[in-house]
Amino acid sequence: MTISMHQASVPLFKRQLGALLNWLDKAEAHAKARNFDTANYLQLRLAPDMLPFVAQIRIASDAAKGCVARLSGGEIPKFEDNEATLDELRARIRKTLDYIDSVPAAAFEGGEGRDIVIPMRPPREPVQMTGLFFLQHWALPNFYFHVTTAYALLRHAGVPLGKTDFLGPA
Amino acid sequence: MTISMHQASVPLFKRQLGALLNWLDKAEAHAKARNFDTANYLQLRLAPDMLPFVAQIRIASDAAKGCVARLSGGEIPKFEDNEATLDELRARIRKTLDYIDSVPAAAFEGGEGRDIVIPMRPPREPVQMTGLFFLQHWALPNFYFHVTTAYALLRHAGVPLGKTDFLGPA
Repeated sequence: MTISMHQASVPLFKRQLGALLNWLDKAEAHAKARNFDTANYLQLRLAPDMLPFVAQIRIASDAAKGCVARLSGGEIPKFEDNEATLDELRARIRKTLDYIDSVPAAAFEGGEGRDIVIPMRPPREPVQMTGLFFLQHWALPNFYFHVTTAYALLRHAGVPLGKTDFLGPA
Repeated sequence: MTISMHQASVPLFKRQLGALLNWLDKAEAHAKARNFDTANYLQLRLAPDMLPFVAQIRIASDAAKGCVARLSGGEIPKFEDNEATLDELRARIRKTLDYIDSVPAAAFEGGEGRDIVIPMRPPREPVQMTGLFFLQHWALPNFYFHVTTAYALLRHAGVPLGKTDFLGPA
């Protein structure tokens, strides 16, 4: 047996975005217990020149929907990037999951050989790679980078999370 | 085309461990410029109840060699976990890469169906899963968790790293 491009991508995004929703529930409970506004989480940063929590979640969502769209040859859904509350971040994650679920597995066939072009911030030229390289060395590491950074920010803020929350149940 | 278990695991570990070696070079240059001992990095933590930098790198190494050994039916190489300098951490990463390179791709055949048993800290019972579940929902997220946390600690410490350092070249 070998793994299809759908199998190599979609279940990973779905599981981790589901775990992320659980962390937000724990973050909300922590804020209630300590009596602070959950919106305070959104601008936390690990370093002054790193992106804040709200951007970590937006980019994790972008990495997942961008990968699914690119590998399946679809249009990347465009979200507004205007979330200002924990509930709006939850809604974005759910919209991302709904989009991922809407793409049929068959659309990923041949995705490993697709020509993927990633626009970069000017003056950098766009970068080009195959679908397989894109999945393995761009989309997945980037996705995990941003969910792990979101997790680290919540841990830094005192939210009681552990590795089991990160990985989900065995 | 579909992806083999070897292709779905080994290139990801190799690329990211190679990137990690580059971050350590930048961490060393940063320490030299600021005139502090590189060993100071080893005990940095993002939160008082998270593991220090040295452990993040050990566990990233463990996640990679453990995954390769389990999927290929080999013995997991045991390292001493006694690194006390940046150079010793580098040596551990290189030993991990050497081990990964030593396992022939053919040994991964059928790895997706292997019965994987992960020992947990008592009193938790060991957990059991298939090779495919283990790779996708345990080994890869865990590996990226620890390399991202190591990266976050270096960023927090002022080491000039960016997303291109994390992902490597396109």
